[in-house]
Amino acid sequence: MGVLEKVREPADLNALSDEQLTTLAREIRDFLVAKVSRTGGHLGPNLGIVELTLALHRVFESPRDRIIFDVGHQAYVHKMLTGRQDGFDLLRQKGGLSGYPSRAESEHDLVENSHASTSLSYADGLAKAYQLRGEDRHVVAVIGDGALTGGMAWEALNNIAGAKDRPLVIVVNDNGRSYTPTVGGIADHLTALRTDPRYERVLDLVKRSLSRTPLVGPPLYDVLHGIKRGLKDVMAPQGLFEDLGMKYVGPIDGHDRELVEHALEQAKNFGGPVIVHCVTRKGYGYDIAEQDEADCFHSPSGAFDPLTGTPVAAPGAKWTNVFRDELVELGRERPDIVAITAAMRHPTGLDAFAREFPERSFDVGIAEQHAVTSAAGLAMGGMHPVVAIYSTFLNRAFDQMLMDVALHGCGATFVLDRAGVTGEDGPSHNGMWDMSILQVVPGLRLSAPRDGARLRELLREAVAVDDAPTVLRFPKGALVDDVPAIERRDGVDVLVREGDTDVLLVCVGSMAATGVEVAARLTGQGIGVTVVDPRWVKPVNPVLVDLARTHRLVVSLEDSGRVGGCGAALGLALSDARVGTPLHVAGIAQRFLEHDKRPQLLAEMGLGAQDLARDIVERMAQADDAALVTDDHGAVSRG
Amino acid sequence: MGVLEKVREPADLNALSDEQLTTLAREIRDFLVAKVSRTGGHLGPNLGIVELTLALHRVFESPRDRIIFDVGHQAYVHKMLTGRQDGFDLLRQKGGLSGYPSRAESEHDLVENSHASTSLSYADGLAKAYQLRGEDRHVVAVIGDGALTGGMAWEALNNIAGAKDRPLVIVVNDNGRSYTPTVGGIADHLTALRTDPRYERVLDLVKRSLSRTPLVGPPLYDVLHGIKRGLKDVMAPQGLFEDLGMKYVGPIDGHDRELVEHALEQAKNFGGPVIVHCVTRKGYGYDIAEQDEADCFHSPSGAFDPLTGTPVAAPGAKWTNVFRDELVELGRERPDIVAITAAMRHPTGLDAFAREFPERSFDVGIAEQHAVTSAAGLAMGGMHPVVAIYSTFLNRAFDQMLMDVALHGCGATFVLDRAGVTGEDGPSHNGMWDMSILQVVPGLRLSAPRDGARLRELLREAVAVDDAPTVLRFPKGALVDDVPAIERRDGVDVLVREGDTDVLLVCVGSMAATGVEVAARLTGQGIGVTVVDPRWVKPVNPVLVDLARTHRLVVSLEDSGRVGGCGAALGLALSDARVGTPLHVAGIAQRFLEHDKRPQLLAEMGLGAQDLARDIVERMAQADDAALVTDDHGAVSRG
Repeated sequence: MGVLEKVREPADLNALSDEQLTTLAREIRDFLVAKVSRTGGHLGPNLGIVELTLALHRVFESPRDRIIFDVGHQAYVHKMLTGRQDGFDLLRQKGGLSGYPSRAESEHDLVENSHASTSLSYADGLAKAYQLRGEDRHVVAVIGDGALTGGMAWEALNNIAGAKDRPLVIVVNDNGRSYTPTVGGIADHLTALRTDPRYERVLDLVKRSLSRTPLVGPPLYDVLHGIKRGLKDVMAPQGLFEDLGMKYVGPIDGHDRELVEHALEQAKNFGGPVIVHCVTRKGYGYDIAEQDEADCFHSPSGAFDPLTGTPVAAPGAKWTNVFRDELVELGRERPDIVAITAAMRHPTGLDAFAREFPERSFDVGIAEQHAVTSAAGLAMGGMHPVVAIYSTFLNRAFDQMLMDVALHGCGATFVLDRAGVTGEDGPSHNGMWDMSILQVVPGLRLSAPRDGARLRELLREAVAVDDAPTVLRFPKGALVDDVPAIERRDGVDVLVREGDTDVLLVCVGSMAATGVEVAARLTGQGIGVTVVDPRWVKPVNPVLVDLARTHRLVVSLEDSGRVGGCGAALGLALSDARVGTPLHVAGIAQRFLEHDKRPQLLAEMGLGAQDLARDIVERMAQADDAALVTDDHGAVSRG
Repeated sequence: MGVLEKVREPADLNALSDEQLTTLAREIRDFLVAKVSRTGGHLGPNLGIVELTLALHRVFESPRDRIIFDVGHQAYVHKMLTGRQDGFDLLRQKGGLSGYPSRAESEHDLVENSHASTSLSYADGLAKAYQLRGEDRHVVAVIGDGALTGGMAWEALNNIAGAKDRPLVIVVNDNGRSYTPTVGGIADHLTALRTDPRYERVLDLVKRSLSRTPLVGPPLYDVLHGIKRGLKDVMAPQGLFEDLGMKYVGPIDGHDRELVEHALEQAKNFGGPVIVHCVTRKGYGYDIAEQDEADCFHSPSGAFDPLTGTPVAAPGAKWTNVFRDELVELGRERPDIVAITAAMRHPTGLDAFAREFPERSFDVGIAEQHAVTSAAGLAMGGMHPVVAIYSTFLNRAFDQMLMDVALHGCGATFVLDRAGVTGEDGPSHNGMWDMSILQVVPGLRLSAPRDGARLRELLREAVAVDDAPTVLRFPKGALVDDVPAIERRDGVDVLVREGDTDVLLVCVGSMAATGVEVAARLTGQGIGVTVVDPRWVKPVNPVLVDLARTHRLVVSLEDSGRVGGCGAALGLALSDARVGTPLHVAGIAQRFLEHDKRPQLLAEMGLGAQDLARDIVERMAQADDAALVTDDHGAVSRG
């Protein structure tokens, strides 16, 4: 029996010897590689945080003390130490462990959102609450260096630093590349601290001094503080945090558990906000992940061979790749095109463009607001920016899209990958909000390609617009087969036209294939159907209104939230045109979706072809019944 | 003839002597006080930026060089120097000058958005564009210390600092209270620089050295740089910006035009990003404004006596005041209530609460993201936060509302002041987006009080919800008279019930009074009408669906964007319930509105009682016509 199996809750760690803890760290890494190589999931970040998590759970008393992991994909080790080892076989699968903290799973989890840079704000709020309520509970935020490039983190730091008597421990887990290598001034500053040749000597000094300090006891921060003061001469200047008024401890080797424990102990007892700067290595202890420059092991999407790192299933064609290749083509044709990513160069497919046009490629860090507004600036300066971003993360820059890009009529193109249901990553990764919130932005044009051919075509149409923002959105993962049109009418593609003009099925983007399948089922039952793909869904194409007028039922089908989306926009257009044809809006249920696979989630919400067809048949039957009594109704009300 | 009248464009400044420039500064201040005391507008910020603006326009060559004012309410002096003095008589009035930069007004204006902390991102984008295009144009961002508390500014700084060869001048206009006194670590840091006893001596040194430096000439940054290096011993450590890798010049007396010009000249010629830190005084040169602790002269809303500062019109009852008083009451009853503001304590009415419960009151700076997510943290810690914010600024924290508050089911209340059409401040201040984007947030409850009595009542209902976010929104300015209900049916207030069940008028919030007026006009023409105020507009109250079923036309009326708002949500509910009653959505046109007064703007968009009534009469007539041919239609389609 290994050490790991004996650890069912954090308190179990206290009984372990140093040697056992070292063994435990190794066992945890073996466990992670074994499990994640079968299920996929976040590997690199978790391999890098093993010792740090052990130290956190030995020094702090969770769940009484609150440990908040920024982003949350670095919480696997935390899950293993809080009674959830058995769940890893079904990691990120329906009914299995979430890939992020989950309150339903454990009282040790508090924050489920996996958008970056939030932890410090939560922690500030919690610390304020505990202080006001007189509860003696510690709050710890664990944040990566990458997340420090996000504006929220700065807002929080500014506030935390301003309250010197409110205890809060901020652990900076600095591996230099939370996603791709961290960028900007803060990264340079951390690197300067990390790579100072005197660093090793400092470590030694701190370590030797600390080893003379009892682990538990009266507030000992001043001891450490005194040491650090004394070290001034050998330290690189690390003023940034201190200039803000924060106490700072570091840099510390984050893989030296004992040292981290000592530092955390000091921080815990200080009585104010403290930053503990730990230097770690992403993928530590698993060579393939540690030397992974393209960051593939940040989060392998499926099973892989643990010995070689090779994915078990060969990757198929992906939406992202179509965009990637077409953008490079466009970049060759148009020297005014620039590309912007928010710390997601590889996953959004901008890597090829960046290789060929490095000077026209900008990674701004986890900084969606800056990505969008600097795009406005680039457009004002005569360039055409293409901002590639995950759909769910655009929510961070809604105001910038509205006020900075649209109000100024900037020609900038936003390419939203992972739109619609993404599934395995749970509620905060689903890109089910874009179609709704972007509807309100005046002048913005929104498009959802239904297949690879349309993605190429619409991207070209998008970058041709120079006086308004354009948005393209497409789902995560495998590309669907091209869905041919039988006719294009003023920009609207007619995919199916069978029988009477009973049902008009308006399919948005990737739902087109489903729509065609629905049509086949309907015609099989004698119901006439027209299936169209509007290609551009905002503004509403007048062709749709004309078509709606001649049909008996309109069904809009979109892979986005039902509320305020394309269906709702069509409804408003119909109402404004005084077209009375009933409209049924089919889309994602407006709730936070549990993690599961995309097809299963869509099916569960009635967005599979079979359910959709059945629902439409039923509605048509009801409409027939209603038609029979229309005379009465008309007569009763004002005949 | 004064000096001011001779200045019609920036180039005219170059011909002026030092003495004339000093006279000009005085004339500008007299002009500002004289004009703004008649029209209202932003006074304090502009009085504080006179010399700085003069210096900017003498050193840089606008519009070839680009000067971007953060927020933009500090651009009055800029307007005066770029040919727009004559427009100030109609400042912020229809057809007159905008209160912010405006591209329609002048080629010297580029950025119109008046949300804070954006200038550095625009500037970064512009600088990138000019560099890529090989255009030798300078980019200058002028940002207040308050705007530096916003996360966007940090994201931009991080990026700007990371590109050492890209010229960009950042002028920090530091008056210590962009709105209310600036908060947090950055404020403390700036204060430390500003208040260092050695500051005066530094100023003298810099000044004497610079006076030996020719104003125009070869790159002279290194001269200044050398001086600053030499000054290290007498300077307070000002590492923050330098730690990020930015060159820093300062602090400089921002009212010493000559000194500012010298510093800007150095910065302009440096060839990389430079921060010029200018210390100014808000309201400088106008005692009443300068000594204005409550910051009333930040932006007096109407005319005032320039000698005494007393408003000409006595202020009437305001929405904000009702909220202010009720929150204090609630604070007395419930020790768990805490209040959060984002640098808007007075304008949002949190000042009274802060006076009585200082320890339960948090000003987080211009940091809406942190305001919202720290509220989530406070809720998780057992408190009930009330976040008071302008409607338009909540857009900055949409993602935080969705993912941090709603996903976690936090009981937090958001009070949106200045919702709907605000008018005079132009497109970026209208609060016309909240009702739409908040509709998509699962679990969130949204309410719009129609009058003061309902505001008090709904605020109490809101803070009683402890497992989901609640939002209240109300307009800017004068409170309307209470609109009594004749009945409350399951939470829906029935305001009018006259004649047949022809028209159901669903009035959201402050549109209730208009709705009652519309009803009077309709009944006058023999059309039966029911007017209801749902009070809580999200989720849609089933009572509305039931009522719609028995009426012949539903009209929803809201002071928010038409797209995706309350009307659209009602439409979806009706469609889901298969209620075929036609729905007309009346609301704000989905475009950016030019500045004008609120009543005029509403009237122009057809949201006055007369136009609404006429439109409804016409729709009813059309419905009658349609009813006559319903048989045919029914028969034709599937009879």
